[in-house]
Amino acid sequence: MASSTSTGVGSPCGACKFLRRRCTQECVFAPYFDSEQSPAQFAAIHKVFGASNVSKLLAQLPVHLRCDAVVTVAYEAQARIRDPVYGCVAHIFALQKQVAILQAQLMQVKAQLAYQATLPQAANGGSDGDRVLMQLQVMGCKEEPHHHFGELHAMAQRLMRS
Amino acid sequence: MASSTSTGVGSPCGACKFLRRRCTQECVFAPYFDSEQSPAQFAAIHKVFGASNVSKLLAQLPVHLRCDAVVTVAYEAQARIRDPVYGCVAHIFALQKQVAILQAQLMQVKAQLAYQATLPQAANGGSDGDRVLMQLQVMGCKEEPHHHFGELHAMAQRLMRS
Repeated sequence: MASSTSTGVGSPCGACKFLRRRCTQECVFAPYFDSEQSPAQFAAIHKVFGASNVSKLLAQLPVHLRCDAVVTVAYEAQARIRDPVYGCVAHIFALQKQVAILQAQLMQVKAQLAYQATLPQAANGGSDGDRVLMQLQVMGCKEEPHHHFGELHAMAQRLMRS
Repeated sequence: MASSTSTGVGSPCGACKFLRRRCTQECVFAPYFDSEQSPAQFAAIHKVFGASNVSKLLAQLPVHLRCDAVVTVAYEAQARIRDPVYGCVAHIFALQKQVAILQAQLMQVKAQLAYQATLPQAANGGSDGDRVLMQLQVMGCKEEPHHHFGELHAMAQRLMRS
């Protein structure tokens, strides 16, 4: 039961409390889930991954790496609860989009810098910079949205074909 | 058994073949896992998430969103098999680091552009650009590695405290 550990002293860990099972001294979850607030956090992990799968995952890792694994598993679980379709992959898509926008901006500003360096001082004004940006936009270096849904469907098609 | 569907015609889907169970016409996995190559792909999903959890996840989604969910779950599962500690969160950290580097580069080049615009033409050379970059580096705008492990341990500490 959740009301005691195997030694009869103290509370079960948050995972065992949620699972309503006896918490032993060898419990792989105990160092990472306390009795008071962690049962709710563990609930997301159990719903998405299953306690048994996470237990096996942790058991195969050296002790010093388990805390990082718990944190990343908890993050993925919470993301999947919030967004059942994309989970934390939504965060990856958002970051990929941000990288693409920053790369385009950097290329624009570098081109503007190179162009400005070639101008006589009198022409070194904002309007030339604007002209370079316009040229870059004509060349296709615009801040287009990153169409990750297209990529996703390509992935899906590969998955279903293979 | 895996040798036939409920109708006795055709093969079971890749998920049911892996799970060695009867594949019915209502099987939630059948549209996304074929019989030939998908059992191996489903194995990773089953190992990380459990077939039952993924089945419940898909069943709660409208049909038109299930393919995207299967693709993202498959991606997360494969990432966790490859990297049991960080899974696909390693990709998030790498992208966050890339964003931080690009933001620093963009800030440097924008500052260089602004500085160059204020210079007399004769001084508008590479050595001034280098001086600006040096000034920015002195100001702390260097391309430092993004210490995600520090962030992760902060997350872990919050998780364990809460």
